[in-house]
Amino acid sequence: MSKLDRIRHFLNENKSGLAIVSDPVTVNYLTGFDCDPHERQMFLFVYENREPALFVPALEVARASSVLDFPVFGYVDSENPWQKIKAGLASTDIPIIYAEFDNLNVTKFQGLQTVFEGRFENLTPFIHKMRVIKSADEIQKMIVAGDYADKAVNIGFDNISLDVTETDIIAQIEFGMKKIGINQMSFETMVLTGNNAANPHGIPGTNRIENDSLLLFDLGVVSQGYASDMTRTVAVGQPDQFKKDIYNICLEAQLTALDFIKPGVTASEVDAAARNVIEKAGYGEYFNHRLGHGIGMDVHEFPSIMEGNDLIIEEGMCFSVEPGIYIPEKVGVRIEDCGYVTKDGFEVFTHTPKELLYFDV
Amino acid sequence: MSKLDRIRHFLNENKSGLAIVSDPVTVNYLTGFDCDPHERQMFLFVYENREPALFVPALEVARASSVLDFPVFGYVDSENPWQKIKAGLASTDIPIIYAEFDNLNVTKFQGLQTVFEGRFENLTPFIHKMRVIKSADEIQKMIVAGDYADKAVNIGFDNISLDVTETDIIAQIEFGMKKIGINQMSFETMVLTGNNAANPHGIPGTNRIENDSLLLFDLGVVSQGYASDMTRTVAVGQPDQFKKDIYNICLEAQLTALDFIKPGVTASEVDAAARNVIEKAGYGEYFNHRLGHGIGMDVHEFPSIMEGNDLIIEEGMCFSVEPGIYIPEKVGVRIEDCGYVTKDGFEVFTHTPKELLYFDV
Repeated sequence: MSKLDRIRHFLNENKSGLAIVSDPVTVNYLTGFDCDPHERQMFLFVYENREPALFVPALEVARASSVLDFPVFGYVDSENPWQKIKAGLASTDIPIIYAEFDNLNVTKFQGLQTVFEGRFENLTPFIHKMRVIKSADEIQKMIVAGDYADKAVNIGFDNISLDVTETDIIAQIEFGMKKIGINQMSFETMVLTGNNAANPHGIPGTNRIENDSLLLFDLGVVSQGYASDMTRTVAVGQPDQFKKDIYNICLEAQLTALDFIKPGVTASEVDAAARNVIEKAGYGEYFNHRLGHGIGMDVHEFPSIMEGNDLIIEEGMCFSVEPGIYIPEKVGVRIEDCGYVTKDGFEVFTHTPKELLYFDV
Repeated sequence: MSKLDRIRHFLNENKSGLAIVSDPVTVNYLTGFDCDPHERQMFLFVYENREPALFVPALEVARASSVLDFPVFGYVDSENPWQKIKAGLASTDIPIIYAEFDNLNVTKFQGLQTVFEGRFENLTPFIHKMRVIKSADEIQKMIVAGDYADKAVNIGFDNISLDVTETDIIAQIEFGMKKIGINQMSFETMVLTGNNAANPHGIPGTNRIENDSLLLFDLGVVSQGYASDMTRTVAVGQPDQFKKDIYNICLEAQLTALDFIKPGVTASEVDAAARNVIEKAGYGEYFNHRLGHGIGMDVHEFPSIMEGNDLIIEEGMCFSVEPGIYIPEKVGVRIEDCGYVTKDGFEVFTHTPKELLYFDV
């Protein structure tokens, strides 16, 4: 069944005549048309029993039409998009409409309500359910994106020096990636030295790389529309024993969770597998975020791997496993790989070694 | 009056007891606390007659508390944020609540509706009205961001060569900016050669720079929280007369609009000032987007400088002026500066020359 047919099947089962897709990433996922309309309007209308239609800003109509085999219509900035939608659609008299509530702001929602008088229901849970299970083709793209992340972090390693700043290393990493054709990182690359790494949302700056300390890299790239995401923490010089101990607790937590994952366990249990290791070592309060997040066309997507999430892990799910221990003013460690759930386990996308690596500077 | 007092004054005038701010950029604008909670929840609650409160993910509580002089409360991923909000706020029994409808998705809106039973109204228009008029301090930051954009485009110029690709030049620009401490571009830098520039949303790639053609740069940086945005189109070798003619029509349109802007004219009239030049020359159909967009802490913000927008231009407004002419398979030109409205005119933030620049390669 095609992805659009799966939507139609869902609509049929739920006695609805129309799904409205407003997340540009979901539009791309469903149709292959990749477009960020920014503050302008883009909606994919998937009817249960008619052909779909895409509504886009005028300057995207030609490109969308060349990619899609169904009607595309548009509006220029000076036109009222809601009137254009009403006039352009084959049918707007639909009793139950599903829309992506997680990706539809109230203003747009009110606009759509001027077009459709029916009752709106939330399409997001079904979209999550579709996107959370990756196809073999998607996993292949994520393996490639993971390989590039390994390359990126190794460029970082090659540039460790006491003469440079966090930002200098980031510049080298992103420059190196652009030179091999990677135009987009998954998010702003993080390189954090010493106590700056002890803040789970630390911001890289002009801090020079510290000696006898830990250095944290968190980065990913976008390749063929799919994101990677990884974190490595390495030793510069000879960090003290306490820092090494914290590193090894975090590593044990990560390896324990990776080993635990298989179809049938819950997201909450995966989180607990890692968290128990850190708690038993006495550092539970310093691991103050969820274990992981789904990943795919978005770097953060459904599901959350966290306490209280009873979602059952299935083959084909892709997510991060990233325990961290952040002791303010003392030490910060995070170790992260993303991977995919196999028939009986979990395969990671990133393969840079995880025993504590030492860089003499 | 402080920014928070202006919100309180607005609430008082509109018989409302509470404003809920959900756009992270508006939170930063109002309080100086800069945080992107991604898919987690962050809300600033501004009461008309009580002290405000900020709700953030647990791992941001310490940092927020160190910046703010009012209460901060948080939640961990496994908790229900709506219950925590209800339990943590001093008052939730409020008949009329203003929320940022343009930056609040339906799921979050429904969550807030479980906390507050009152009627919700849209805060976005008032926030636009506040943010659209920049203070002298904000304009100073935007002048600095503009200077950096000039530097960035000049790094691009220095790297023009037939041996490199669009992406190679982008890598050099962003590397150069990182080396002088600019970690964030306003958006993905665009370098488009030849016919790729004829697509107003063309995507840079591995195209080698073409000779005897035009080359388009669209870029900006974020500095001290404020964005810049500029476009220059330059000649590589000796483009034919038609391309030069199109360039000069676009330039005349831009200069005409820049010269026209002053307090009292409307956004629509500013758009028309540029558009009339291009229409008279016979290329109106190839200028298929609005003339400009507001800019400030966001690279695209209110207002739209476009046909049909009767907004009256006032001193302190900042926006882009960016006419373009895109003739598919033939030529693409765009020339863009952002600037601020003065007492009697418009001052641009970017000063790279605009007569057609020639690069011999």
